[in-house]
Amino acid sequence: MASGRNTKGESQASSIWGGRFEAGPSQIMEEINASIDFDRRLYRQDIAASKAHCEMLVRQGIIAPEDGDAILGGLDQVLSEIENGDFEFKATLEDIHMNVEGRLAELIGEAAGRLHTARSRNDQVATDFKLWVRDTIDQLDGGLRSFQSALITAAEAHAATIMPGYTHLQTAQPVTVGHHLLAYVEMAGRDRSRFGDCRARLNENPLGSGALAGTSLPIDRQATSEALGFDRPAANSLDAVSDRDFAIEFLAAAAITATHLSRLAEEMVIWASEPFRIITLSDAFSTGSSMLPQKRNPDAAELVRAKTGRIFGTLMGLLTVMKGLPLAYSKDMQEDKQPVFETADALNLCLAAMTGMIADLRVDEDRMRVAAAAGGSNAVDVADWLVKNLDMPFREAHHATGNLVKLAEKKSCPLEDLELADFHSIEPGITDDIYSVLGLEESVASRVSYGGTAPANVAGACAEARRRFLDGGG
Amino acid sequence: MASGRNTKGESQASSIWGGRFEAGPSQIMEEINASIDFDRRLYRQDIAASKAHCEMLVRQGIIAPEDGDAILGGLDQVLSEIENGDFEFKATLEDIHMNVEGRLAELIGEAAGRLHTARSRNDQVATDFKLWVRDTIDQLDGGLRSFQSALITAAEAHAATIMPGYTHLQTAQPVTVGHHLLAYVEMAGRDRSRFGDCRARLNENPLGSGALAGTSLPIDRQATSEALGFDRPAANSLDAVSDRDFAIEFLAAAAITATHLSRLAEEMVIWASEPFRIITLSDAFSTGSSMLPQKRNPDAAELVRAKTGRIFGTLMGLLTVMKGLPLAYSKDMQEDKQPVFETADALNLCLAAMTGMIADLRVDEDRMRVAAAAGGSNAVDVADWLVKNLDMPFREAHHATGNLVKLAEKKSCPLEDLELADFHSIEPGITDDIYSVLGLEESVASRVSYGGTAPANVAGACAEARRRFLDGGG
Amino acid sequence: MASGRNTKGESQASSIWGGRFEAGPSQIMEEINASIDFDRRLYRQDIAASKAHCEMLVRQGIIAPEDGDAILGGLDQVLSEIENGDFEFKATLEDIHMNVEGRLAELIGEAAGRLHTARSRNDQVATDFKLWVRDTIDQLDGGLRSFQSALITAAEAHAATIMPGYTHLQTAQPVTVGHHLLAYVEMAGRDRSRFGDCRARLNENPLGSGALAGTSLPIDRQATSEALGFDRPAANSLDAVSDRDFAIEFLAAAAITATHLSRLAEEMVIWASEPFRIITLSDAFSTGSSMLPQKRNPDAAELVRAKTGRIFGTLMGLLTVMKGLPLAYSKDMQEDKQPVFETADALNLCLAAMTGMIADLRVDEDRMRVAAAAGGSNAVDVADWLVKNLDMPFREAHHATGNLVKLAEKKSCPLEDLELADFHSIEPGITDDIYSVLGLEESVASRVSYGGTAPANVAGACAEARRRFLDGGG
Amino acid sequence: MASGRNTKGESQASSIWGGRFEAGPSQIMEEINASIDFDRRLYRQDIAASKAHCEMLVRQGIIAPEDGDAILGGLDQVLSEIENGDFEFKATLEDIHMNVEGRLAELIGEAAGRLHTARSRNDQVATDFKLWVRDTIDQLDGGLRSFQSALITAAEAHAATIMPGYTHLQTAQPVTVGHHLLAYVEMAGRDRSRFGDCRARLNENPLGSGALAGTSLPIDRQATSEALGFDRPAANSLDAVSDRDFAIEFLAAAAITATHLSRLAEEMVIWASEPFRIITLSDAFSTGSSMLPQKRNPDAAELVRAKTGRIFGTLMGLLTVMKGLPLAYSKDMQEDKQPVFETADALNLCLAAMTGMIADLRVDEDRMRVAAAAGGSNAVDVADWLVKNLDMPFREAHHATGNLVKLAEKKSCPLEDLELADFHSIEPGITDDIYSVLGLEESVASRVSYGGTAPANVAGACAEARRRFLDGGG
Repeated sequence: MASGRNTKGESQASSIWGGRFEAGPSQIMEEINASIDFDRRLYRQDIAASKAHCEMLVRQGIIAPEDGDAILGGLDQVLSEIENGDFEFKATLEDIHMNVEGRLAELIGEAAGRLHTARSRNDQVATDFKLWVRDTIDQLDGGLRSFQSALITAAEAHAATIMPGYTHLQTAQPVTVGHHLLAYVEMAGRDRSRFGDCRARLNENPLGSGALAGTSLPIDRQATSEALGFDRPAANSLDAVSDRDFAIEFLAAAAITATHLSRLAEEMVIWASEPFRIITLSDAFSTGSSMLPQKRNPDAAELVRAKTGRIFGTLMGLLTVMKGLPLAYSKDMQEDKQPVFETADALNLCLAAMTGMIADLRVDEDRMRVAAAAGGSNAVDVADWLVKNLDMPFREAHHATGNLVKLAEKKSCPLEDLELADFHSIEPGITDDIYSVLGLEESVASRVSYGGTAPANVAGACAEARRRFLDGGG
Repeated sequence: MASGRNTKGESQASSIWGGRFEAGPSQIMEEINASIDFDRRLYRQDIAASKAHCEMLVRQGIIAPEDGDAILGGLDQVLSEIENGDFEFKATLEDIHMNVEGRLAELIGEAAGRLHTARSRNDQVATDFKLWVRDTIDQLDGGLRSFQSALITAAEAHAATIMPGYTHLQTAQPVTVGHHLLAYVEMAGRDRSRFGDCRARLNENPLGSGALAGTSLPIDRQATSEALGFDRPAANSLDAVSDRDFAIEFLAAAAITATHLSRLAEEMVIWASEPFRIITLSDAFSTGSSMLPQKRNPDAAELVRAKTGRIFGTLMGLLTVMKGLPLAYSKDMQEDKQPVFETADALNLCLAAMTGMIADLRVDEDRMRVAAAAGGSNAVDVADWLVKNLDMPFREAHHATGNLVKLAEKKSCPLEDLELADFHSIEPGITDDIYSVLGLEESVASRVSYGGTAPANVAGACAEARRRFLDGGG
Repeated sequence: MASGRNTKGESQASSIWGGRFEAGPSQIMEEINASIDFDRRLYRQDIAASKAHCEMLVRQGIIAPEDGDAILGGLDQVLSEIENGDFEFKATLEDIHMNVEGRLAELIGEAAGRLHTARSRNDQVATDFKLWVRDTIDQLDGGLRSFQSALITAAEAHAATIMPGYTHLQTAQPVTVGHHLLAYVEMAGRDRSRFGDCRARLNENPLGSGALAGTSLPIDRQATSEALGFDRPAANSLDAVSDRDFAIEFLAAAAITATHLSRLAEEMVIWASEPFRIITLSDAFSTGSSMLPQKRNPDAAELVRAKTGRIFGTLMGLLTVMKGLPLAYSKDMQEDKQPVFETADALNLCLAAMTGMIADLRVDEDRMRVAAAAGGSNAVDVADWLVKNLDMPFREAHHATGNLVKLAEKKSCPLEDLELADFHSIEPGITDDIYSVLGLEESVASRVSYGGTAPANVAGACAEARRRFLDGGG
Repeated sequence: MASGRNTKGESQASSIWGGRFEAGPSQIMEEINASIDFDRRLYRQDIAASKAHCEMLVRQGIIAPEDGDAILGGLDQVLSEIENGDFEFKATLEDIHMNVEGRLAELIGEAAGRLHTARSRNDQVATDFKLWVRDTIDQLDGGLRSFQSALITAAEAHAATIMPGYTHLQTAQPVTVGHHLLAYVEMAGRDRSRFGDCRARLNENPLGSGALAGTSLPIDRQATSEALGFDRPAANSLDAVSDRDFAIEFLAAAAITATHLSRLAEEMVIWASEPFRIITLSDAFSTGSSMLPQKRNPDAAELVRAKTGRIFGTLMGLLTVMKGLPLAYSKDMQEDKQPVFETADALNLCLAAMTGMIADLRVDEDRMRVAAAAGGSNAVDVADWLVKNLDMPFREAHHATGNLVKLAEKKSCPLEDLELADFHSIEPGITDDIYSVLGLEESVASRVSYGGTAPANVAGACAEARRRFLDGGG
């Protein structure tokens, strides 16, 4: 750092930057600056936006029709080269936009230089990236729908299969397997709705915002909006080029979805453990040990659970990038794409794995029944009986039930094996109708309140879920 | 840890747990377990939900009308005691629900015990908390609207005030102050929309889900939903008691809002610095040094920027809490409220401070003009002129402009001071019409594309923003 | 926002800021700016630092001895007032520093004004906060040591108690309870070491750095460093006032510690679940249901697990605050204390709860043995026997063992119940010595490699842990 | 999800999993499970650890010397194939460990099967990964040292160059450029120390821990520890295979380092902006616009600032992964490597870019002087003069100075242009000695307290920094 410009050759550079950077400044700059390694994933969106822009320029008389035709033909050629794997991406051209335009110039010559009229990389990249996120949301919606479909199908098969319901991972009350699975259908439904809201909110077109201030050329932003499926042009050019809300919101929606998958994954890991063993995961989603063929490690479930971390990290990362950035575009915003790509890939993969695991899941109904009956899970049924039949205040019924449970404990038997005299010793008003609520089936069947676990409710809820989420299909 | 139960007195305990815990296990447990210190903030929602529940129980014939009347009257009394500061919260009663019910029992006796019929703390707390978040969203919507109102009012006054537009914090093109402020109106609009979506999605009623499985009592969940302003009852009881999506989504929406405020805060700090000095923050939101009366530290802006960290932290915290939790309710979920309370308070405060800062902001128009003219910010106007008037491909126009900028640099003058001969030396087709686009006013006025910075556009955008966001008011 | 200064009364303000801010700007500013509500916790450190500073000023002849005496006496008085609860904290004095100095002025008059000579709030707050973090690290070190002590005591009692060792939560190999508990002793040992490194690194004295540039007064920073137990004065005044590394590093160390506690908490929740039921948590750290006396929810463990989220959040929050802050002091840095206070409190509480839970833990040795024997957990012992006795390559031994496991599965018996002929059918070289490694005790006892689970190793490891971590005490 | 095992072909699978997963379960499982795409980076460490393990097995008589020789020769061959790019990595072999062993078997046959004796993938991967992190820390230490070297060199050249010192980004007091740069030398020094502590703490050898319980084979863990440069074997096998503290701690240290770089990057962006323009970044680390040759966007600085987000994200991600994982190894822990790799790459790159930017930095000394003089930055010198010469209490001196500043404002002149009579009007005791402290040079030169900004101090601090951090080199 002299007060004069430092000009140094490679050999000097290596002595200064050391480390793995044997190279001079230009290579460091290229490495930190180039984005083509990851933003090439935007190629389809970039070309689609360029075509829409070009068509509008022609219609507005900003460029000549023959130039427009050349550009459109050239872009189709570039697209096909990329999709066929014949395209050579060049780091020296930095990003996908310049790679596409560079190749276009090779193909059609001077007219290529007219494509970038009335646009800037700032509005171009915002447009491309929004289109990519929008496409990805549509893809994830399909993945979530498939996941719901697998859950509903399984819930239908197990609408009446009794399993232990847990709170604090302690046996609380019996529920049905179908009821439990439908809880995840609800979560996935909210996830789809959340991604859908993100999609609707992002669907404003940045194209035509220029570098930051708009343009003096007579463009038609409504036209490009329509061509690209945007609901409307973004209302403020400064905002349009400096907004990455849609990417953060996408990551936040993904983080919540990942949380749901992590909860189901955790349950699978626990339920498949030796002492529980109420489910069996299919071989396809487990890994064994070649030594212990009976061993079936729930690797896929564990990996789904773990990828939650990665997804949370991308959200935190992009929030950090955007915090405190002045308007309009700053280069910091180039760090927006990798988190979104990583999370989209991770979430797609997790959804596919979970859908597969649900589709393949085997339930051990016998062990589930035994587990469901453990721990006095029908005590609350006694309390409800007292409230309904003896008009007892709930808190009092609760207290009487506690005494019955203690009595059963003293007699080392479950509640349903107490004799009527035992019941009378605590509460003389009890009749032998009490036995009608003490069985697992009776307990479960009694929960008929809307949203409750009674098999009839669950069957109805399956039908309703199919209607709400799958449109009668699956 | 013997294999037998350890029963120890306080003096033993202190030798084992040491640290600041001079106390035995029961005090540690009370300290980690009690939530009344923070969940008392739910009192209004808790009482409202209890009243709706009670009225439904009466209508369904589950409790007697006279008991219902006693309960409703008692709850009103409790509410008024709390609001008047006459209520004694007790840590031994753990949480707000038991504090309210405990006091109700003191007031009306045995009938109080009937209130908890057909409900559990699990569905109760989910209901209360949802109502609180819903109320808070409504409040924040008001705060965001006030913020927009201040921004629009300022934008109207400065629709034509020219300021430097930055990319990379380098002077890029002139824009208007109004245009810049309206960018934040758009952001706040998306924020309101995002909170609104969160509100719509959360608006399903958990009440009636019981502990996890529903209830056998003949409740009417539609009725409590209507009474509490919910759109419908939650469809799955297991999901309803174990869902905290609404809290995470609230925090995510808050984090994005905080990001917006942090960007404006950063700009205020930079714009108010000595070398920029294009704005002056009011005394009310600055702190001086008693020694240096001319000093005006932008403390409020810095604190708004900093609180972004707190808000991000709460989001990360709650995501972490929920990751991998099996269904249904786990005590971990008690850690859901403080992050939401903290973020609601921080965001309310930041919005109020920012709204005040915008309302009080003084713009130094002269310094802004000087700054806006710096750095050849009208070069792109030359390029646009060449495209429009000489039908030059943009990339070529861009190149010619670069040569003109170099020529002006060599002559140490701004572009607008070059002579026509100078222009001709680079591009003979240029006419003296070129001077018509080189002034700041002309440059700004030319950006008439939709969403652009031309004063006429900005004035229109203000009117449109007023219509979209303030309903003709403010 | 006119171009002139806006001076508005309260009634106007309320119409502008709306929301819960009925107040004018001054109240908003006070609310966002004042820190006395939380930084009062620094009172002891603030007074200690002021006393050291005062004594140095006297020794250097910067203030007169009689003024020094008055200040020192006054500060002692303030300290005693605060500790006795007789001190009135005032939000109008903003922070702890001004509250103390304000009261000092009331007590001793003009001389109080000499205390702030050659110092600034910037170096003062950095010094106070470092001292607080240092004290807290010492306290946490005690808490971690107590936790280790409880673990070692339990490990000694259970050095030979066999339990299932899990990978993927699948039964893998038998280990001893003592061995498992000692794993947490190692983690806590690293935690103490990490906090210790943080303490050593932070122990440089910011006092004397002034606002940012140092001072022209002849202070002696070595003297205040010694008086306050710092290793040396911080070497650069700009760094000293703008450094919050120590707080972030403290939070990072706390986050890792919390991760460890969360893992143990997760194990407790799972082990205490009905199907596992290999441990029982004491009543003191569980909550029951008044209805279901046999129910014992692991609330304390769940809350320890959940508080991990809060602690991660504070780390993320402070990192966000500090990201991209230019030197030197910015008001953003006022947001440094609450995250640290919250995390210190949460971690102290979690350590106390965990220490108590370990001290009270009951192990069900019978159920542990049964669980440990499940799943062919001795298969690897067969492979080891083949390697040791038949010089078989491990991969081949592994393969042969797999065939033996399959054979045992076909015969529906554990490996140890196969006849010698069965063994020969797979590998003729096997002798009846094979039975000597197939028992649980034999399996466990054979793992004598350093760090292994053999009871003798574990007993030795307990003694070693006692020496390394408890200095022969506990 | 029937209760029977689902066996489905690809065509069925595609209808169920949909989305981008046209494939059946096995391909989804392979995609989520395989780690060879990223863990191949561990090849050097994996081979080194295998060689150390093999040599120990031979010495302990567990495998024969000729087998050992074959293995060692084969491993060298594998290493050379990988380094020469001749190695074919196979996803079907899942990870780097099986890829290396698989190729070894091809090369040397059956003896390859003896290498895995007395070890498991669980201790193997922990060992490899620790070795990788250790190597990376050594590399980053070199990068941080180079960064310090560039800073110190620049600080020496600018020990007396005056620049504005900021608090709240408001001009506070003049400091020297060297002083400011040395603040970052301190930060980088703490960073190196923090990484060094991480390195020391991780340097315990997991190898020999087996799957989780140790081994019954007579291994010598001390020997492999010495061969691999570990300080000692890890003391507890369960801990050793389930510990990822070292990775989290690495990420936390990286996050703090990134924070430091982000602060310097922020300063560069602000200082290079048009209104400040007190520095010029070299072309090598800027990007221009081809249109505006005078424009020099600080892209590299912005990208360094932005990568902070990525690094924070990896820390949050791995903390999330490890939260609540029961012992010992779970597949979740496979998600430990990519965050560490990403952060190591990002930090290496940021350090190289920052080192280059500092080495190339041009300071505009004239503009710095002007900026430093602005805003009454010498007012505190007046206060100090009053304290030193008139024995005035600081608070009173502060007040008198405030009146002088107001007087100067009224006269529209800087403090140094007030006449002595003006000074007397406020404080009669002032002599014309006051002018000796009012110049920028005098102000800066007076800050002679240890760590202060006086040029002589800074020169000394440079020498001291060279000694502390560069060992007399650079």
